[in-house]
Amino acid sequence: MYRSHSCGELRAKDINTEVTLSGWVQKVRDKGFVVWVDLRDRYGITQLVFDEERTSAEVLEVARTLGREFVIQAKGKVIDRASKNPNMATGDIEVLVHTLNILNEAQLPPFTIEDETDGGDDLRMKYRYLDIRRNPIKEKLMFRSRVTMEVRNYLSGQGFIEVETPYLIKSTPEGARDFVVPSRMNEGEFYALPQSPQTFKQLLMVGGLDKYFQIVKCFRDEDLRADRQPEFTQIDCEMAFVEQEDILNVFEGLTKHLLKEIKGVEIGSFPRMTYDEAMRRYGNDKPDTRFGMEFAELNALAQQRDFNVFNSAELVVGIAVPGGAEYTRKEIDKLIDWVRRPQVGAKGMVYVKCNEDGSYKSSVDKFYTQEDLAAWAEATGAKAGDLICILSGETSATRSQLSALRMELAERLGLRKPDEFAPLWVVDFPLLELDEESGTYHAMHHPFTSPKPGQLELLETDPGAVRANAYDLVLNGNEIGGGSIRIHDSETQAIMFRHLGFSPEEAEAQFGFLMNAFRYGAPPHGGIAFGLDRLVAILGGQETIRDFIAFPKNNSGRDVMIDAPAPVDAAQLKELNLKLDMPS
Amino acid sequence: MYRSHSCGELRAKDINTEVTLSGWVQKVRDKGFVVWVDLRDRYGITQLVFDEERTSAEVLEVARTLGREFVIQAKGKVIDRASKNPNMATGDIEVLVHTLNILNEAQLPPFTIEDETDGGDDLRMKYRYLDIRRNPIKEKLMFRSRVTMEVRNYLSGQGFIEVETPYLIKSTPEGARDFVVPSRMNEGEFYALPQSPQTFKQLLMVGGLDKYFQIVKCFRDEDLRADRQPEFTQIDCEMAFVEQEDILNVFEGLTKHLLKEIKGVEIGSFPRMTYDEAMRRYGNDKPDTRFGMEFAELNALAQQRDFNVFNSAELVVGIAVPGGAEYTRKEIDKLIDWVRRPQVGAKGMVYVKCNEDGSYKSSVDKFYTQEDLAAWAEATGAKAGDLICILSGETSATRSQLSALRMELAERLGLRKPDEFAPLWVVDFPLLELDEESGTYHAMHHPFTSPKPGQLELLETDPGAVRANAYDLVLNGNEIGGGSIRIHDSETQAIMFRHLGFSPEEAEAQFGFLMNAFRYGAPPHGGIAFGLDRLVAILGGQETIRDFIAFPKNNSGRDVMIDAPAPVDAAQLKELNLKLDMPS
Repeated sequence: MYRSHSCGELRAKDINTEVTLSGWVQKVRDKGFVVWVDLRDRYGITQLVFDEERTSAEVLEVARTLGREFVIQAKGKVIDRASKNPNMATGDIEVLVHTLNILNEAQLPPFTIEDETDGGDDLRMKYRYLDIRRNPIKEKLMFRSRVTMEVRNYLSGQGFIEVETPYLIKSTPEGARDFVVPSRMNEGEFYALPQSPQTFKQLLMVGGLDKYFQIVKCFRDEDLRADRQPEFTQIDCEMAFVEQEDILNVFEGLTKHLLKEIKGVEIGSFPRMTYDEAMRRYGNDKPDTRFGMEFAELNALAQQRDFNVFNSAELVVGIAVPGGAEYTRKEIDKLIDWVRRPQVGAKGMVYVKCNEDGSYKSSVDKFYTQEDLAAWAEATGAKAGDLICILSGETSATRSQLSALRMELAERLGLRKPDEFAPLWVVDFPLLELDEESGTYHAMHHPFTSPKPGQLELLETDPGAVRANAYDLVLNGNEIGGGSIRIHDSETQAIMFRHLGFSPEEAEAQFGFLMNAFRYGAPPHGGIAFGLDRLVAILGGQETIRDFIAFPKNNSGRDVMIDAPAPVDAAQLKELNLKLDMPS
Repeated sequence: MYRSHSCGELRAKDINTEVTLSGWVQKVRDKGFVVWVDLRDRYGITQLVFDEERTSAEVLEVARTLGREFVIQAKGKVIDRASKNPNMATGDIEVLVHTLNILNEAQLPPFTIEDETDGGDDLRMKYRYLDIRRNPIKEKLMFRSRVTMEVRNYLSGQGFIEVETPYLIKSTPEGARDFVVPSRMNEGEFYALPQSPQTFKQLLMVGGLDKYFQIVKCFRDEDLRADRQPEFTQIDCEMAFVEQEDILNVFEGLTKHLLKEIKGVEIGSFPRMTYDEAMRRYGNDKPDTRFGMEFAELNALAQQRDFNVFNSAELVVGIAVPGGAEYTRKEIDKLIDWVRRPQVGAKGMVYVKCNEDGSYKSSVDKFYTQEDLAAWAEATGAKAGDLICILSGETSATRSQLSALRMELAERLGLRKPDEFAPLWVVDFPLLELDEESGTYHAMHHPFTSPKPGQLELLETDPGAVRANAYDLVLNGNEIGGGSIRIHDSETQAIMFRHLGFSPEEAEAQFGFLMNAFRYGAPPHGGIAFGLDRLVAILGGQETIRDFIAFPKNNSGRDVMIDAPAPVDAAQLKELNLKLDMPS
């Protein structure tokens, strides 16, 4: 038996007990006549003590040789600690060691195993097993485990069945790029790894399972942006005989359950907002509603003067920045530079300072009167001391630019508080999205999403105007879940595929199994999927998702620790009937 | 709202309640003036009634058009049922329908949606979504979900953390063939899909997580035998600071928990048996101990006469078949044919009938006296009325043949009772296994398994004799779990790789990350993995695993429903830098 207790367990009541502990050496303090060792395991730290009076010379000698991260087993007696440490759970006691075994030695770790480490990102990833020993990372992994357990508890309690769907499936042309897997048993053919279990969960509804969920890995072979992984985890759910209202209720319940059980936060009914309203008020379909700074459209107020920039703009829109009137000219110039960065893309920014004396000072003073500016202040809700930032141009681009500015300023002003939670349902998404480049429409959610009742005909005349039974759950400015009521009859599904540019033959070849299933009695159904990585990160305080993943990949899709992906040998390629066309 | 109640919910107390039900039409009985419809959903069946007196003509007309598996919504009043059906949970009531909506029509299903269907295996797989509507399959999927929930409940309660390990990893040369995934971002390189998360869970132990589990898909690109899947699910567990005894205790606890919660069966301490003993007593390292028929080695009793077949054999071994003395000559000949089939491989079989009058009749009467045969009967435990079956030859082949015969006869005799559970720990497995063809050793469990303490030197002189800290959990003749205490220092791991034929360079290239991790303070650790598919099937009554998998693959690794794997187009291959060398 390696241990009788964990390193986080012993208390004053255990004094005089004979114990065996195992763990890692966190720290050795050698004061000559006495040596203290902090022994660490997952559960905590316990102080071991060795001294010349009470410890045998041999054991004391071994204790002096211990290095950081050595794995040891210590046997001894729990004793009262002279200088108690109230910041440590085990701070009332220490263990006077009489037997010490080194279970494994350790080289000096490449970075310190402390809450604040000196290891950079790459080094920590390469030695992820050492990084995980650090409290902040260990706790994040435990936190993730707790979140998934609570998700399962809630959904099981609601009658959901967890069903495993296959990982080796068929490639589909819609959505992101698939990872493919050559099949040795079926030459020249490939499996694909699922981007989501979408069609399978719909088949389970056709199969009568009524309420399905699964916490499942999904895969997308996309070029990686920061903080995005080629494999990610989804809480995937589907229900039969439901309308949108039913889904929103069940998953509002799940989210409340998590906020309560995990964060101790109780929240009432989640507000709802249409996609159009979210775009109008926040320029964003996943607005952070923890703070105001709502958009005010100023066309009517700003286009009656001689300022051509505004007059020629499709949209003139502003926000009030609390306390922004204090910004220096230099700070405002920097802000203007910020909105003009290519990532944001605005041409410029008009500002109005709302002075404490009730006067206004703007960058367009020669075009507008104090009364004009006062009207803008009223529209944006700006008070004395605030700054109004105004962008103008094409509606959708301008909204997106101002939304970026709003989020950036909120971040700088500390308004995005990690322990405050503002959930929001965004509903009535457009069914289709126009791809500007190709001039064709593609599904905004996915091709199985149903249009709003009665809007099927509108597809023929004004596809962009059709709204879908689709909804997103937004938390603190992040989309944490999204779903829709699905099409459940093969005729509507065929119409949908046609509008997405599939020929009937292509639709049949790719999705024949699903449309066929719909012909044998498919119930009305719908569902939702949550991005677990993002959800966990936000619940855990909105840090990067990477820390909550045990073995993440870097931005090249590479696991730096195990050096994957890697070349495979010629024999294996031959067996798979593959040739590599290596760059020469 | 599609329904106020499920189809399994209404009882006599609900009489006079106005309800809305939705579901599938199981059956329509049209008696002219009255039409009964059995409406089915996941939760049960409720009888709907329409009659000329109380139902409007239009609704009655629609009811008459309903076909099997139509999806409908019915509104009406719960009424007392004239002829109650005590076999149905809802058999006291029926619903008198006043409003009927057809939500979706259905083509005639290709097989009947009944507990006993007329659909063959292939047809049921092709229309798996219809198969799942059948109670036996639906209940198996629900059963699987319940088992996994109970596994999680137990392990969470024991302090295990569920950690997701990556699916896109690096190919390893050990074990079965890997599925590989070409990487677009890293040209010429491939990920592999994991055969198990073995090295990752060991890294988590190095990382101090102490107790890890995961219910996880694993992948093996093997030619498929019946009832084996290229993707399968594992309950994967690892613990630090443990000896074999600790692991056996925790996972005996898990198994007891499942037997109790799922099957209502309470079982005491699980028996333990060494690998050598299991081979000697049952010819098998996963013996079914629900019944006797143990092996009796008869060399000493059978090799003192003139029967050369026995005299020249390394092993003469028999079992007693209860009631087998009744077998006719023809039946016994068939049994002999059975053991001589190539799949079994015996040359022949000697038998002894233990007659009710105390006499013996054998196929070797001219070599052996009645006293000889009586001694065999005593050794095998055969009683009057039993049949002794004896095989002989090289030890390991003969044991395996007799084991096959024992299992076959037990099956025929109904001794393998699906509701009886006989768990067994098999321990002290050999560390290495000799590959007869190549003359080289490979790891019996895997290359990370530690030899028994003090046996490292024996590796140099007699590798086949070294025993491992490895154990299997056997349930009813199936290995449901297997694991080991791992090597946790890089020196021992290097010695192990050398014995498995790796050069130091190969070992470093493949497993350098693990051996490196061991140098930074790896704790002693060990674990176990359960095959979830098999475990669920055995708990569910030992049927084929396929029924417990929502979307299984056939023996060609093909999902017949979605027609995967499938060819991918040239553009995709080009992007992946792959060429296919199609057979011409």
